[in-house]
Amino acid sequence: MATLSDPLIQSLQKMIDENRTTWIRDFLTFLSFPSISSEPESKPSLLACADWLKNVLTEMHFHVELWQTSGHPVLFASNLQAGPNKPTLLIYNHYDVQPVDPLELWSSPPFQPAIKDNEVYARGAQDNKGQCFYVLQALKLLQKQSGTLPINIKLCIEGEEEIGSQGLSEILKQKKEALKADYLAIVDLGLRDPKIPVITLGTRGIVTMDVSLSCAKSDLHSGMHGGLIQNPIHALVHLLDSLRDANGRIAIPGFYDQVLEISAEERSLLSFQFDAAEYQKSTGGHPVGGEKSYTALERAWIRPTLEINGINGGYTGTGFKTVIPAKAHAKISCRLVPGQDPKQTGELVAKFLRENAPAGAEVEVRVHAGQGKAVRISPTAHVVKVFAEAYQHVFGLPCAFILDGASIPIVPELKEACGGEVIMLGLGLATDQIHAPNEHFGIDRLEKGMLVMAKAIDLLGK
Amino acid sequence: MATLSDPLIQSLQKMIDENRTTWIRDFLTFLSFPSISSEPESKPSLLACADWLKNVLTEMHFHVELWQTSGHPVLFASNLQAGPNKPTLLIYNHYDVQPVDPLELWSSPPFQPAIKDNEVYARGAQDNKGQCFYVLQALKLLQKQSGTLPINIKLCIEGEEEIGSQGLSEILKQKKEALKADYLAIVDLGLRDPKIPVITLGTRGIVTMDVSLSCAKSDLHSGMHGGLIQNPIHALVHLLDSLRDANGRIAIPGFYDQVLEISAEERSLLSFQFDAAEYQKSTGGHPVGGEKSYTALERAWIRPTLEINGINGGYTGTGFKTVIPAKAHAKISCRLVPGQDPKQTGELVAKFLRENAPAGAEVEVRVHAGQGKAVRISPTAHVVKVFAEAYQHVFGLPCAFILDGASIPIVPELKEACGGEVIMLGLGLATDQIHAPNEHFGIDRLEKGMLVMAKAIDLLGK
Repeated sequence: MATLSDPLIQSLQKMIDENRTTWIRDFLTFLSFPSISSEPESKPSLLACADWLKNVLTEMHFHVELWQTSGHPVLFASNLQAGPNKPTLLIYNHYDVQPVDPLELWSSPPFQPAIKDNEVYARGAQDNKGQCFYVLQALKLLQKQSGTLPINIKLCIEGEEEIGSQGLSEILKQKKEALKADYLAIVDLGLRDPKIPVITLGTRGIVTMDVSLSCAKSDLHSGMHGGLIQNPIHALVHLLDSLRDANGRIAIPGFYDQVLEISAEERSLLSFQFDAAEYQKSTGGHPVGGEKSYTALERAWIRPTLEINGINGGYTGTGFKTVIPAKAHAKISCRLVPGQDPKQTGELVAKFLRENAPAGAEVEVRVHAGQGKAVRISPTAHVVKVFAEAYQHVFGLPCAFILDGASIPIVPELKEACGGEVIMLGLGLATDQIHAPNEHFGIDRLEKGMLVMAKAIDLLGK
Repeated sequence: MATLSDPLIQSLQKMIDENRTTWIRDFLTFLSFPSISSEPESKPSLLACADWLKNVLTEMHFHVELWQTSGHPVLFASNLQAGPNKPTLLIYNHYDVQPVDPLELWSSPPFQPAIKDNEVYARGAQDNKGQCFYVLQALKLLQKQSGTLPINIKLCIEGEEEIGSQGLSEILKQKKEALKADYLAIVDLGLRDPKIPVITLGTRGIVTMDVSLSCAKSDLHSGMHGGLIQNPIHALVHLLDSLRDANGRIAIPGFYDQVLEISAEERSLLSFQFDAAEYQKSTGGHPVGGEKSYTALERAWIRPTLEINGINGGYTGTGFKTVIPAKAHAKISCRLVPGQDPKQTGELVAKFLRENAPAGAEVEVRVHAGQGKAVRISPTAHVVKVFAEAYQHVFGLPCAFILDGASIPIVPELKEACGGEVIMLGLGLATDQIHAPNEHFGIDRLEKGMLVMAKAIDLLGK
């Protein structure tokens, strides 16, 4: 393996091997906190998880602060022992996780981590506790190796990424001095192929909203009122279906107006090659969503989307109930590309929904906070070159560049607060089932993550 | 009041007044059984409710049998003391009720009956325990009045009306002898106006089904997969929206082929007059559902419908989850008019849904048992004339004829087993909130029900 040709990596891998039982036990502890940021009843678990991180980092000679926000606290930790002549790297992760339903589809309980075929199964195993954990382990390894860290390190580990980073967003301006750094690493991204190292040059933005249709003051009997009253489920499916045309294009006037097309230069760095058969095998589904006039990865990377993420109305239990409900509901998200403003797009969609309310239906739309713009980073930045080199040492292959269709809404603001060069990376895979039942992360990738982070930090200190 | 001019009615009303506390207490006991037929966990309550009825009827000198079925038992009770020279009336009711969700919209617990402004609030208060109760009270009043009943009475009180009467349907043929009667009264219908007595000349048929769309083997992240995978919620809203055209007409080829148009003679008996303002006041909704080329009551009475009674998919809790679900689901019912066969219509709809599956979506349709044809009864039958006379005595106004858009799927089979003339009646109102939160029934209508039933039974014995 190429790994072994680098003395530092060789030495760190030895330490990883020798302490595997210990660090895996620590990882499983981290995963056992049900830190679901969207569920108010999980608040104590979020606080306990942040506290656990605080203890871990204090033991690692970090100065740790829990920044209180209107939501869940942000953990900020710094170790500036390398001194003012060395650069400072700010690393971003999050300790909150997605909800777990449908719970019945999990093979093992989401907060009782299980290991099977060298993959760790738990909510958060990848997103983002797994990726946060290899960052922490990389720092531990470097400290063990040299007694100290080669550069100044700041960690920003927030607790609201999955619900829009509202709290962190609110306090960013007053914490600008603390967050100042030469480089910012966003460690919440993924690979396209487990063997090929990649750096993510961009993510999509996001705006989300709730839609409710109301047609009566109470549920009604579908025999007596069927054919008489407007049925809000029919009104809702009609309204939602009108959002896309037959070619998968979003039919809201002006939706694409602000879209900046990808430059020839950016396109030349990226590979849009897509293995439909592999995708079908891994997801069990066909890559036939979105706009028909674009290729698969164009649709996932450089085109905006409108997806219905939830719908409900009427009776949905076992058996049947002949009811016409009073109301029906949907949750919608749009992924955005460079040029699109989340607030403007949210208002555009909301306006369309309100103006096209079917007869007899009142439409209410609530656009959520926690929006974020699309992000693009420079492939020529020093930090990107250094991480590409570290990746190549660990994987034995040159680093490729990709985009990611997902969103990390806080990045543009965090980048501004930090003021340094940005790199976005991570070792997730599309098959990790993040945001879904049976989320999992490979132990091999945990180890590679430790090595990549440690090697890059070492190189940044040279 | 016209009521007082008839000596029998006068005497019965006196008994009603004198014993009001007692019979209201009994009614509330009947309502307190959570006999929800669609929920397996309610089985003990259904059995307890049937047992309670058995005790009540045994005390009234009825011979009571609990007919076991594949589902919940049918209570069959007979009192043939009037002898072979007197006619026999078979009366149909049901002791099962609809589910209660959304529970949070009930002002008082659905199985802890509450009385407010002379209305009794509880699940089943009207449908059908209220209407069953006034039948039982009418028989008690006649027994108290004369020591015996003027005609032979058979009662068939089933426990699966709200889930399609499967059990009763299965045993009807072997119970033909027991069910034989000169007249059959279906007491599960309603009034259009609380002051105007009506007899229902017909009901719509029904067929129901579950639809599921599957696009992947697991829920997926809407950032990584948005624009790539087919979203089953989008596929479902598209498929469901295609079931109706812009004029509210059901767009399934052949759906209307078997519809028998209403005859001029039947139309002449019915009033299609409809008070839109009153409807809007009572439901909080606009009567703009169904086919635009028909009037409101034509749409509710003589036209078939297709209604989505439930829809769900993805994340529907508080907050937001950026998921593309693996599956999405809907529940559909069709109300049918004379000429339409439930099985054929069900298959037609299922075929359309399967054949129009959007790309990347697998469609599964399960048509339920418990279907039923539309029913029409003869306005010139003796039993109809007798009940019309009884109604006029109690209400002081001539009886009108209406249709009802709802369905009692067992009626055609029960009619065949009984072999006699049929009457469909009841004192429900559209505002009773049956199948919805805060179902209620007026104490005045309970009393009128007792008087109408008692007077009609007395007249049938003359």
